[in-house]
Amino acid sequence: MREFEFIEQLLAPLTASTPEARGLRDDAAVISVPPGQDLVLTKDMMAAGVHFLEDDPPESIAAKLLRVNLSDLAAMGAEPYGVLLGMGLSPNIGEDWLKRFVKGLELDLAYFRVRLLGGDTISKLDRLTLSLTALGTTPADSAISRFGAKAGDLIYVTGTIGDAGLGLQVLKGNLPAFAQGADFLVERYRLPEPRLAVGFAMRGKAHACADVSDGLIVDARRIADASGLRAVLDLTDLPLSESAMAWAGTSNERRLDLASSGDDYELVIAINPASASDFLTLCKHLSVRLTCIGRFEKGRGVCVLGAGGVVLPVTYQGYEHR
Amino acid sequence: MREFEFIEQLLAPLTASTPEARGLRDDAAVISVPPGQDLVLTKDMMAAGVHFLEDDPPESIAAKLLRVNLSDLAAMGAEPYGVLLGMGLSPNIGEDWLKRFVKGLELDLAYFRVRLLGGDTISKLDRLTLSLTALGTTPADSAISRFGAKAGDLIYVTGTIGDAGLGLQVLKGNLPAFAQGADFLVERYRLPEPRLAVGFAMRGKAHACADVSDGLIVDARRIADASGLRAVLDLTDLPLSESAMAWAGTSNERRLDLASSGDDYELVIAINPASASDFLTLCKHLSVRLTCIGRFEKGRGVCVLGAGGVVLPVTYQGYEHR
Repeated sequence: MREFEFIEQLLAPLTASTPEARGLRDDAAVISVPPGQDLVLTKDMMAAGVHFLEDDPPESIAAKLLRVNLSDLAAMGAEPYGVLLGMGLSPNIGEDWLKRFVKGLELDLAYFRVRLLGGDTISKLDRLTLSLTALGTTPADSAISRFGAKAGDLIYVTGTIGDAGLGLQVLKGNLPAFAQGADFLVERYRLPEPRLAVGFAMRGKAHACADVSDGLIVDARRIADASGLRAVLDLTDLPLSESAMAWAGTSNERRLDLASSGDDYELVIAINPASASDFLTLCKHLSVRLTCIGRFEKGRGVCVLGAGGVVLPVTYQGYEHR
Repeated sequence: MREFEFIEQLLAPLTASTPEARGLRDDAAVISVPPGQDLVLTKDMMAAGVHFLEDDPPESIAAKLLRVNLSDLAAMGAEPYGVLLGMGLSPNIGEDWLKRFVKGLELDLAYFRVRLLGGDTISKLDRLTLSLTALGTTPADSAISRFGAKAGDLIYVTGTIGDAGLGLQVLKGNLPAFAQGADFLVERYRLPEPRLAVGFAMRGKAHACADVSDGLIVDARRIADASGLRAVLDLTDLPLSESAMAWAGTSNERRLDLASSGDDYELVIAINPASASDFLTLCKHLSVRLTCIGRFEKGRGVCVLGAGGVVLPVTYQGYEHR
């Protein structure tokens, strides 16, 4: 399938109700940002064998590409608006694969109510390389960032941590004896859940936020660095799924592994203790689990505590996709 | 050089006067679009060995990546605003290469007054793969597109056609006996000139426009297709540089080659004969050569005429990067 046919036959139909996309026949999209709104822009690239596995289902690759970008928008408290899709195709990608990819993209675009606005397709690469630019909106001057944490803020995290990292190990065959919840873990790796509703709930309440893409410890530390503070994390409070709990138990080392593995796409949030209960109530209405796992204080870097209050050695400088 | 160091040490300094980029420490940029302006968004990917040569100077690769996107903005009549940069690095890309790439990018961003807003860097790819998202602005509802050509419109093209295609052949060693203007041709391949000023001059005057990225004939045909018309092109009027003229002379076959080769990044413009003289005067002030090479008429497809009025067989369906 040639680049032109791919765009015309498979992608263009997805833009039928999006005049901004101009049927993908112009080289650019034209949008009108509503007055009083800021535009939030993020871009993530993903490559086969690095950020996803070659034999992951095409539908879930499309969904993950979209969702990791929506997760960035969620961390800013932004509402998704639209995306530009970059596809770098390799010769092993055939028409059937492309149809399944587009089907997965279509379903997820509809699910998250995001417009496909445009993009670019190239071919003749050695490995499939994807690039997505996502646009979101926030009320003017209200985007949340990594910068605003204050000493004394509590650190909350959504959902559970470490599932995706275990899911990747399951797919790689590194956890042969660990059948419990394997499907759940793999799904957490392939289909992260961008916490968009929590992002809205944070507006005017949270001081800082980031999504957990490179590991909870690293991403909490980045908020600390950006805000000129120290993050103190207590891994005895680390929120674990049943499957992750079955693997880690109370082992400090294994909990450290989970808090250092990537691809969670949960939110780590800095919030003043006085604002926390309002926020917790909101998140309860949203049925999103929210766990306090530490605080920001004066100082630098990160301090990670394990069972018995021992300080755990943090050697990871961040999850490196491989 | 690790991804994080590359961003922190080389890219972040480029955003010193761009608060919207948040020091590249958030996962997203936040911009405020001026009231009354539409936002124009385009995205182009480029891969080593496909869209540029592995041993092209890093400075010119950065500049070309930026310029091909600015060319898309020019075709819409948009003013450049900012870019998101996606870098997919391969192991053969070292620190010196990256420094030179960033230097080239910095110079060109300043030259075109474009902000670096954000992006993403990944590594472990087999070949360097770049992705740029460019943002521009136009007054509301005034973006130009491929769609609006009318029967009777004249077809104008900026600059000269075919130089970049010849430049690529020079670099590949396919024109050994052709030393005349070789440096000029190579520069035209490596450093296209986005016709931004012509883009502004078109506003309210041109009916349709596209940039010539895949070959003049194909890009003129795409305007025809989008507008439901036929493009008639007369290659005896094809604007050629001295070097291209020395290669092609009056040969129909060679002129067809030049009008079918990619990477010109000139603009092909549909304009009502009554508006043309105003527009020509404006372009003369801008010192941009503008040549009438045909017209749009009722019908479909493209009709290409050569010397003596003969209809030339068009077999190319568009330049495929290789």
